[in-house]
Amino acid sequence: MTEILSNFLGGQWTIGRGTGTALYDPVLGDELARVDASGLDLIGGFAFARERGGAALRELTYPQRSEMLAAIAKVLQANRDAYFDIATANSGTVKNDSAVDIDGAIYTLGTYAKLGQSLGDRRYLLDGAAASLAKDGLFQSQHVQVSVRGLALFINAFNFPAWGLWEKAAPALLSGVPVVVKPATSTAWLTQRMVKDVVDAGVLPAGALSVVCGGSAGLLDALGHFDVLSFTGSADTAATIRRHPAAAERSVRVNIEADSLNSALLLPGEAPGTPSFDALIKEVAREMTVKSGQKCTAIRRIFVPEAVFDAAAEAISGRLAKTVVGNPRNESVRMGALVSRAQLAAVREGLAYLKQHAEVLHDGDTHALVDADPDVSCCIGPTLLGTRSTDSADSIHDHEVFGPVATLMPYRDTAHALTLVRRGRGSLVVSLYGSDAAALGNAALELAESHGRVHVISPEAAAVHSGHGNVMPQSLHGGPGRAGGGEELGGLRALNFYHRRAAIQAAPGVLKTI
Amino acid sequence: MTEILSNFLGGQWTIGRGTGTALYDPVLGDELARVDASGLDLIGGFAFARERGGAALRELTYPQRSEMLAAIAKVLQANRDAYFDIATANSGTVKNDSAVDIDGAIYTLGTYAKLGQSLGDRRYLLDGAAASLAKDGLFQSQHVQVSVRGLALFINAFNFPAWGLWEKAAPALLSGVPVVVKPATSTAWLTQRMVKDVVDAGVLPAGALSVVCGGSAGLLDALGHFDVLSFTGSADTAATIRRHPAAAERSVRVNIEADSLNSALLLPGEAPGTPSFDALIKEVAREMTVKSGQKCTAIRRIFVPEAVFDAAAEAISGRLAKTVVGNPRNESVRMGALVSRAQLAAVREGLAYLKQHAEVLHDGDTHALVDADPDVSCCIGPTLLGTRSTDSADSIHDHEVFGPVATLMPYRDTAHALTLVRRGRGSLVVSLYGSDAAALGNAALELAESHGRVHVISPEAAAVHSGHGNVMPQSLHGGPGRAGGGEELGGLRALNFYHRRAAIQAAPGVLKTI
Repeated sequence: MTEILSNFLGGQWTIGRGTGTALYDPVLGDELARVDASGLDLIGGFAFARERGGAALRELTYPQRSEMLAAIAKVLQANRDAYFDIATANSGTVKNDSAVDIDGAIYTLGTYAKLGQSLGDRRYLLDGAAASLAKDGLFQSQHVQVSVRGLALFINAFNFPAWGLWEKAAPALLSGVPVVVKPATSTAWLTQRMVKDVVDAGVLPAGALSVVCGGSAGLLDALGHFDVLSFTGSADTAATIRRHPAAAERSVRVNIEADSLNSALLLPGEAPGTPSFDALIKEVAREMTVKSGQKCTAIRRIFVPEAVFDAAAEAISGRLAKTVVGNPRNESVRMGALVSRAQLAAVREGLAYLKQHAEVLHDGDTHALVDADPDVSCCIGPTLLGTRSTDSADSIHDHEVFGPVATLMPYRDTAHALTLVRRGRGSLVVSLYGSDAAALGNAALELAESHGRVHVISPEAAAVHSGHGNVMPQSLHGGPGRAGGGEELGGLRALNFYHRRAAIQAAPGVLKTI
Repeated sequence: MTEILSNFLGGQWTIGRGTGTALYDPVLGDELARVDASGLDLIGGFAFARERGGAALRELTYPQRSEMLAAIAKVLQANRDAYFDIATANSGTVKNDSAVDIDGAIYTLGTYAKLGQSLGDRRYLLDGAAASLAKDGLFQSQHVQVSVRGLALFINAFNFPAWGLWEKAAPALLSGVPVVVKPATSTAWLTQRMVKDVVDAGVLPAGALSVVCGGSAGLLDALGHFDVLSFTGSADTAATIRRHPAAAERSVRVNIEADSLNSALLLPGEAPGTPSFDALIKEVAREMTVKSGQKCTAIRRIFVPEAVFDAAAEAISGRLAKTVVGNPRNESVRMGALVSRAQLAAVREGLAYLKQHAEVLHDGDTHALVDADPDVSCCIGPTLLGTRSTDSADSIHDHEVFGPVATLMPYRDTAHALTLVRRGRGSLVVSLYGSDAAALGNAALELAESHGRVHVISPEAAAVHSGHGNVMPQSLHGGPGRAGGGEELGGLRALNFYHRRAAIQAAPGVLKTI
């Protein structure tokens, strides 16, 4: 039996009571480690985080917490090679894909370390200017933002074991709020190792960072009125969380980032061969294959003018056909594995379902796997589907296949295109491709209500844009409706979730003391 | 049988299919009207609101919507006398208490009419400055706030039929979002009449404002992914709402304002006879009796230094004893009725429960009712309870009696006082009384994390402050935890709930077109 990864809670490394659940190499099939969280004192551990960790963090100013984030980034940078090895083994990702997770985490920490330096030597934030509540301003209202006096529990997804922790922990710690992370079991190793390295380096106060690897039983029960919970994962689990007494009865603040049917939209008038057409083709093929399409921001629906449907189908398929799939240890391979046999089965099942409503434009099964046994590995080639029955294709707008799969659809005019994009009922991101700046601006504003992010690729941005699916810490991450309604990142906006806003109503003589 | 109040939905006045539920005069016991919402086409009516009302509102700029709010305020002002008559009859409130609701509504509308003029001739808001995502700023992220493309459903409480509608509708309409209000049945008349007057005046586009009087069956089922729901009422109903598929599965954005155990805290060192001591006594007696204590912001727990416990008990009791209770039509009466026999029974039951854990310092039953029959009316005198067992008195920190009832408790030192206040597990408001500006500022910051509002009465504020329980549109209304975790008002902050934030990532040439 492989090593059982330790949990860190209540300032102590603790092994669960059971034999645990195994983590596997999704390419070779080897068991890598085990996780187990049974028998942990969650109530005591959470109290320790709140009382020791929270109090210590709140004592620090924002710039001091920023230095802490910079120190974490330094620890991670020093251990970066080990993280890439873990990612190759446990996530089955090629180096470029592992970098999205690992280097993305370090970059996000660095960004918040810088942002925090701008907040001044204080321990809470002023929110706007004072408003007068009496004649001559003798009584005023000043809003403040103060640290939440609870802990932040992160229940995370398997696809970003590194970034998924730090994109949430950076704003939480900067806000003075202690963190408990529960990584997804299948890829918990990298999260656990990063926490271990940071704890061992002694750069955080006791109780500021904890990790629980294994099942989530009891975690929500241990949450109190002033804790916050940030969840990334399926809409089904999100609904279960919202119905739990912690959220429903104790008003625990909950942020949800769920799956969504993100779109790419080529604006009217962009013929094959134009920079905008080419930019769409390139970005779609890239998004479908990065991390084997296992990104909540990946493009799932592609909308093009009717006249260019066939050309787009051909061009995307041509790019996909060149994607070498297999063992990420082979240097010719560009796309590694899905994360687990369970995910592989779910993707195959989802594909079978979508194929009832769409034709196959490029078949992933035509890809021979390089250095990977189809009976053991979780590798699968990218598949492009297509349908011209866009208005009736409910399943295409509703069912997400969390792998290298997307569906191409034609639209009649801009109004039709916007209607089709909105049929995702709320998505994390839509990308727009076109050369008419005003048309792009209009479409961006039209779609802003149903997306957390609108990514616009005009010709002058083609070489410098940050990528449809890449989540930049400067921009909001999260979307309404189907996407869960959450808000993460967005620069300092992320701090809102970890602060409480309050109005202090007082005479100017009292307000000037705060 | 009395008149059945019409519902206004889908641009039409419609009577429910059933015989309805009666509204009563809580002083005289007379039936006043009936409400019924059975058989309404909620799906169709909600679609009309979204598609007709939403589209028309979004066409308007913020200043144009501001003018609309000013026009509403003018309509209400013109019909103000009728509203006071309805309040007297249906809420049993004295004129000053009716004014808190009715004039509070008109003032809040006026405030938002002014605030909206500051937003510029535009239909959406820029949120912060652009952040660079590429070298030389060739690709940037600009956040925007755009109108929610759904409707805003308000499920409101019985105690503020006027203000409860307009404090929510003002920011919603200013944001370009159509409103459907479901008032509490017992006092639905005033809400319905105000909507009728505004609809009849033709100051709003079709579909912008609807009212459903009666049961709430089916309302949440009719909500879609982009609608928002603002609820004011009990924590139990709040939990039911959060568990409903609309919230749990469709991510309908929900704002909850639930009951809470608000506190008043006299800081250490304020002896009887000092301005701060006197300010506490006056404010507590006022808050206990305004609207017969039926305010979610009313003081329920009073904390004073041990040394002044007896003096405070005596002083508050002395003021309460002078409160004349009974029929609001009698000019000597200062405190009218509770809203219904059901509320009267609930208050008597709650009092009996709290009396198991506290002694009676002033007994409401000693008040003779003026022009009110105890067997018919819902009048009850104010009761002050007290206990020195503050640390063990769970029920006092947990059980809210929604009437003219509060409990006095002594504390040892500031740390003890803060701990006791926090045992409310999140409240809408705490008021602080003292003469040391720095001590007041410190306590305000300490308690900001568990309160939506901290109201500080220093001696220079005593004559000009806005009142512990008065909700000013300039300040946040809502509190964490027990109080529901919501945020209303707070000036332009209220618009956040009715807007979606999105990051638009684009080249500067595209961003300059928006």
